[in-house]
Amino acid sequence: MDDDVEGGSLGPYQERPRTFPNMRTKPYTPLIFRLLMRINSRVLLVLLILGLGVLFYIGAITSPIIVFVYAVCIVSFFVSIYLTKWVLSKDEGPPEMVQISEAIRDGAEGFFRTQYGTISKMAVLLGLVILIIYLLRSTSPQQESSGLGRAATAYITVASFLLGAICSGIAGYVGMWVSVRANVRVSSAARRSAREALQIAVRAGGFSALVVVGMAVLGIAILYSTFYVWLGVDSTGSMKITDLPLLLVGYGFGASFVALFAQLGGGIYTKAADVGADLVGKVEQGIPEDDPRNPAVIADLVGDNVGDCAARGADLFESIAAEIISAMILGGTMAQRCKIEDPSGFILFPLVVHSFDLVISSVGIFSIRNTRGSGAIGVLEDPMAILQNGYSVTILLAVVTFGLSTRWMLYTEQAPSAWLNFALCGLVGIITAYLFVCITKYYTDYKHEPVRTLALASSTGHGTNIIAGVSLGLESTALPVLVISVSIVSAYWLGQTSGLVDESGSPTGGLFGTAVATMGMLSTAAYVLTMDMFGPIADNAGGIVEMSQQPESVRQITDVLDAVGNTTKATTKGFAIGSAALASFLLFSAYMDEVGSFAHVKFHQVDIAIPEVFIGGLLGSMLIFLFSAWACAAVGRSAQEVVNEVRRQFIERPGIMDYKEKPDYGRCVSIVASASLREMIKPGVLAIISPIVVGIVFRVLGYYTGQPLLGAKVVASMLMFATVSGILMALFLNTAGGAWDNAKKYIETGALGGKGSECHKAAVTGDTVGDPFKDTAGPSLHVLIKMLATITLVMAPVFL
Amino acid sequence: MDDDVEGGSLGPYQERPRTFPNMRTKPYTPLIFRLLMRINSRVLLVLLILGLGVLFYIGAITSPIIVFVYAVCIVSFFVSIYLTKWVLSKDEGPPEMVQISEAIRDGAEGFFRTQYGTISKMAVLLGLVILIIYLLRSTSPQQESSGLGRAATAYITVASFLLGAICSGIAGYVGMWVSVRANVRVSSAARRSAREALQIAVRAGGFSALVVVGMAVLGIAILYSTFYVWLGVDSTGSMKITDLPLLLVGYGFGASFVALFAQLGGGIYTKAADVGADLVGKVEQGIPEDDPRNPAVIADLVGDNVGDCAARGADLFESIAAEIISAMILGGTMAQRCKIEDPSGFILFPLVVHSFDLVISSVGIFSIRNTRGSGAIGVLEDPMAILQNGYSVTILLAVVTFGLSTRWMLYTEQAPSAWLNFALCGLVGIITAYLFVCITKYYTDYKHEPVRTLALASSTGHGTNIIAGVSLGLESTALPVLVISVSIVSAYWLGQTSGLVDESGSPTGGLFGTAVATMGMLSTAAYVLTMDMFGPIADNAGGIVEMSQQPESVRQITDVLDAVGNTTKATTKGFAIGSAALASFLLFSAYMDEVGSFAHVKFHQVDIAIPEVFIGGLLGSMLIFLFSAWACAAVGRSAQEVVNEVRRQFIERPGIMDYKEKPDYGRCVSIVASASLREMIKPGVLAIISPIVVGIVFRVLGYYTGQPLLGAKVVASMLMFATVSGILMALFLNTAGGAWDNAKKYIETGALGGKGSECHKAAVTGDTVGDPFKDTAGPSLHVLIKMLATITLVMAPVFL
Repeated sequence: MDDDVEGGSLGPYQERPRTFPNMRTKPYTPLIFRLLMRINSRVLLVLLILGLGVLFYIGAITSPIIVFVYAVCIVSFFVSIYLTKWVLSKDEGPPEMVQISEAIRDGAEGFFRTQYGTISKMAVLLGLVILIIYLLRSTSPQQESSGLGRAATAYITVASFLLGAICSGIAGYVGMWVSVRANVRVSSAARRSAREALQIAVRAGGFSALVVVGMAVLGIAILYSTFYVWLGVDSTGSMKITDLPLLLVGYGFGASFVALFAQLGGGIYTKAADVGADLVGKVEQGIPEDDPRNPAVIADLVGDNVGDCAARGADLFESIAAEIISAMILGGTMAQRCKIEDPSGFILFPLVVHSFDLVISSVGIFSIRNTRGSGAIGVLEDPMAILQNGYSVTILLAVVTFGLSTRWMLYTEQAPSAWLNFALCGLVGIITAYLFVCITKYYTDYKHEPVRTLALASSTGHGTNIIAGVSLGLESTALPVLVISVSIVSAYWLGQTSGLVDESGSPTGGLFGTAVATMGMLSTAAYVLTMDMFGPIADNAGGIVEMSQQPESVRQITDVLDAVGNTTKATTKGFAIGSAALASFLLFSAYMDEVGSFAHVKFHQVDIAIPEVFIGGLLGSMLIFLFSAWACAAVGRSAQEVVNEVRRQFIERPGIMDYKEKPDYGRCVSIVASASLREMIKPGVLAIISPIVVGIVFRVLGYYTGQPLLGAKVVASMLMFATVSGILMALFLNTAGGAWDNAKKYIETGALGGKGSECHKAAVTGDTVGDPFKDTAGPSLHVLIKMLATITLVMAPVFL
Repeated sequence: MDDDVEGGSLGPYQERPRTFPNMRTKPYTPLIFRLLMRINSRVLLVLLILGLGVLFYIGAITSPIIVFVYAVCIVSFFVSIYLTKWVLSKDEGPPEMVQISEAIRDGAEGFFRTQYGTISKMAVLLGLVILIIYLLRSTSPQQESSGLGRAATAYITVASFLLGAICSGIAGYVGMWVSVRANVRVSSAARRSAREALQIAVRAGGFSALVVVGMAVLGIAILYSTFYVWLGVDSTGSMKITDLPLLLVGYGFGASFVALFAQLGGGIYTKAADVGADLVGKVEQGIPEDDPRNPAVIADLVGDNVGDCAARGADLFESIAAEIISAMILGGTMAQRCKIEDPSGFILFPLVVHSFDLVISSVGIFSIRNTRGSGAIGVLEDPMAILQNGYSVTILLAVVTFGLSTRWMLYTEQAPSAWLNFALCGLVGIITAYLFVCITKYYTDYKHEPVRTLALASSTGHGTNIIAGVSLGLESTALPVLVISVSIVSAYWLGQTSGLVDESGSPTGGLFGTAVATMGMLSTAAYVLTMDMFGPIADNAGGIVEMSQQPESVRQITDVLDAVGNTTKATTKGFAIGSAALASFLLFSAYMDEVGSFAHVKFHQVDIAIPEVFIGGLLGSMLIFLFSAWACAAVGRSAQEVVNEVRRQFIERPGIMDYKEKPDYGRCVSIVASASLREMIKPGVLAIISPIVVGIVFRVLGYYTGQPLLGAKVVASMLMFATVSGILMALFLNTAGGAWDNAKKYIETGALGGKGSECHKAAVTGDTVGDPFKDTAGPSLHVLIKMLATITLVMAPVFL
């Protein structure tokens, strides 16, 4: 640290540009944009139109449904461009806000660059590994009959993998790009009107939500139609259309691979900074959150963007991609078994559902308007009610469009009422999503009993607060599990009784029913993602307002928005884990199908009475525990580095507390960045390596002990047990974290002694513990569950 | 509270007898003892000899092996009587010690009475339910062919259940009975010699260990031989000997039923008192542990006896009983499949192993002697090394006797080398037990890295301490899972390759190999239980020394013994969970056998690809989370009551802190007692009801959806997932708790600022959180896992 910084005053930043020496270099533009910008705009336009033409041409050859999907996606991209323009047209406020915002932007983009640099190197490496495995693997009988050789399959899988990885990266980047620009505009608007601030945050969130969902749908549609045309699917002697979706699994794996590291790195970053800042700032020094005197405050604000926005973007992208692909696979399998003449309706159904998702969520987003004449500062309405209103609109529309799509896509003469059963499955999914949101709210909102009890437990000390929080979190797993159980069983039976039967006359629609329920659950994904993105943007805006020392009235507005953001964030997690549970069950079935198809034998049982299979389960559950341990420990370790740095700055620059000296924000930013990059590797690699190692070890063991398919069976059981434990662990971590956070907020409203009391201190400890639970380990587990499902699908040939 | 108590001085207790008005009434003697004492001693002797004669006569009819088992058990009872006499012959020290000890004894016996009163009522109720179910159920084909009617089966099962429950209750009572008498003698001996104190604690522990193990073995042997003679087993037209062990499952269920409530009630009691006492005493008032000024200190000391001694006695009794019964069932099944002429060796093998356990553990216990001439006060040697020495002796003997028993019992001409394979299985088990102990030590002993890192994390505050402890606990699940996986696979394969084949020539010894490994693991159970019981006795002795304000040198001795006791307690838990994992896998197999036999179809697969079966797993894992939540919450709630009471006393009697007023210990005792009795019901009933409800619901669902055996399958998967999650959760809770405890102890040695520093306060928070983890929820999970396995076995007919 330079000694001459000592004694500086907290002046405007442009007077002391060296505070962020490594940060504020020049605005960073990704290479691809720089290349594009060099091209003449007319040429670009022509290229774009040409590209669109080719796209639609291929789409038209494949299916009119694909054309519809393309059209909706492209329209929604235009809508999202409109949303960005609208957001960017808002003013950035006074210079002090702009400077803080720029510091955040630089920190976020710098971290993103390094993080995705690391991730892309790993992705390329893994791509090579997959290529080698696929070149050495055996081909399935379907592929053999269609003349699709080893090399073609290998290249297709690796290309899908890389495309999935790139798209996931873009999804993350887009989420962060808009949030670092919207935050300051929300802060600025909060000086004028609460409603306008809310609207900006929602539209910024809406932009990235539309891009993320649109890209997931479009990516899969492009891959699907390209493969369709290239491989001449369904012409004689070539591949059957029902086998096509299996080629897309690489896309899902690529997406979840990137999402895992994005979530881990971002999650560790945001919580290490947050915990570190809180431990010294709030607990030791007694200064408020986001106080400019805290040297870790910029790192904390950067964390919201890289941890919540970027990571959640990648996470939801991956959820939707994985869910679409698994539903397509199951739809194809079922259509084939039932000998449905034109199976494309069943295969492309998920794409249509998510196209409608884009439409109805846009409606929902636009339903949140700036009311006329509310130009004055003031919180006019409950922002939660406004968002909830938009959600209700979206859900109602979802029920209607879902019904329409089932009638359009799933009507078949073999079973004329099947579409109605599937529409009911969708309704089951929508209700499940709604119940998940309600349960999460019950356990994390301080209006209800559990958080109040938790707050009361804080009055007897740190220890009882933690015990109460842990037991609250553990208990909160019960209701969601009951809901998911009921919805799986009912969707399965609605599917079974749909009237679709296979050759032997036995009903086969069960699994597809579960798939439809999952789609129903995700049918409002874009709006939910909007609400989720709203949270960190509002949080950041609050930080900027606090740091630029705006008047109390402005802070009140951003505080309310921030609190609402906390609730929406918590409920989105409930939503995410519910869909992960369902999606994993689908991917598991897809895995069994694929193994069966490669092994040339029926593979539809995983018998846990076999000792090795039982051990696979034990290892799968253990993986979840170990992964959570490493994710939490990573935050703890990084936070300790931050604590030591912040303490050092407070000791070496005693003037900070009286605003006489300026803290060195940049140093905290770089410490957190390097720590989180270092720490994300261990849990990430564990997640990727362990199913592969287990599969290979038991394959070898099975070979020597004469048990065919042992590797595949053990991996299947590992996957199932990991899914179950992962769901429970994620529910526990998310809910406990959210409840601790809100118990603290409840006390801060003045209950039980209010801010500064011993009770509040105990609640802050709980909040600190909850941070890595709910924002690092918990969300990473969502991704982990789906990543395990996709990796086993892609790696299946290795286990045989 | 009486006002006239105010201002009293901390005089000797006999001056203020009303401090324990409800407690010190008159020495409590159970009804059965009172009845026995009324009988003339000569008559009693004659009756005893007659009883023994009948016993040996029945045993001799059944098998010479049974006679051997009887003989060993009876000898070991005499050994244990010698141990008690030896312990009771020691002096109880000065009156102040005696008074404290009497207060503890009264509290413990009072709680035990009320607790077991509640438990026995529930047991009778459940016995009735079982009777009704069995009277309405269908009989298995074997039973039909043997002419064993419904009514006979029903009475046999209920009688076994009640006998198991009674024996389990006695096991708990014995554990507590000796510990409340030994504690004061250890305190008194500590004034003379460390070695003598150690020896008293060990021999007291040894007494209850021998009684517990002996009773488990004897109870099963008596039931087995009685049924053998009564049912005329193996005579033409009657039951086959290989079906006999299935009749004993009621005994295991009765034992685990009582153990569950004993562990829950005792665990809640001990930790509510401990946490409550620490939170106000240590954290708020800054007085040391076990300080006489703390009103909750007697309750805390009572807790050690009812929570650790009584509960662990019932727990280990139940472990051994369940393991013996499941191994007997598997041995019988295998012998039948392999058409072994005299299957009694395979069936009775577990009884012989545990008979040898009694012998070798006695040798181990007696190997800890009072060295000549060490009459002076002083810690001459490391007590841990002495105990470890005894353990090494026991293990070495175990290897030898295990080898001998396999040769004696498992030699068969069909596969002459099978016994060697099974001896190796036993070795695998012994090594597994040893590795479990090592791993637990690595994660919980402050000589090693993990606890030191945890202590370091305390230096950055309460929050980082908790995060580090949680991640340490989660991480600590990995190695035990790997060890158990390797041992299951290797024992299974040693069994498969033993040369034992069924009619079709395929190897069948695998599962029995796992069973033998479990027996190997438990082959030193009595010594391990001795070490475990040593812990709470030493802890109590330390408390008495502290409360009676003995000189520093005496405290040092009890402190060292207490610290050693903490380590042995932690390692025993590792041991218990390892054996629970293996035993549950065996009971699961037994369950599948039984369902198959009742349903008249082969039932040897549990396919988790069926949605309902998957849901069963989800519900099973959820049960573990919910149960842990309720167990922890119960401690938290009860502790808050204690905190409020202690705070109230400190406020209303300000003289307490200056030793001018005497705290009202009795009130804390009765608050904790009633709270823990109230709180044990909810989690306990959850554990018992949920498998039954799930089984019945899915049985009905299966009936309406045309899936036969759905209820049984779903329960099987529930059981498996609950076992896996339970093992992991228990490992997490136990290790995290132990590590927090020792991190605090490490800091108290002077590291990182020592006692009273901020770092120490954070460590105390961790310790508080760890208390319900390691002494309530964790150990209750061990029992829960086995209880689930036995309840499904007993209730199997309901699920069909």
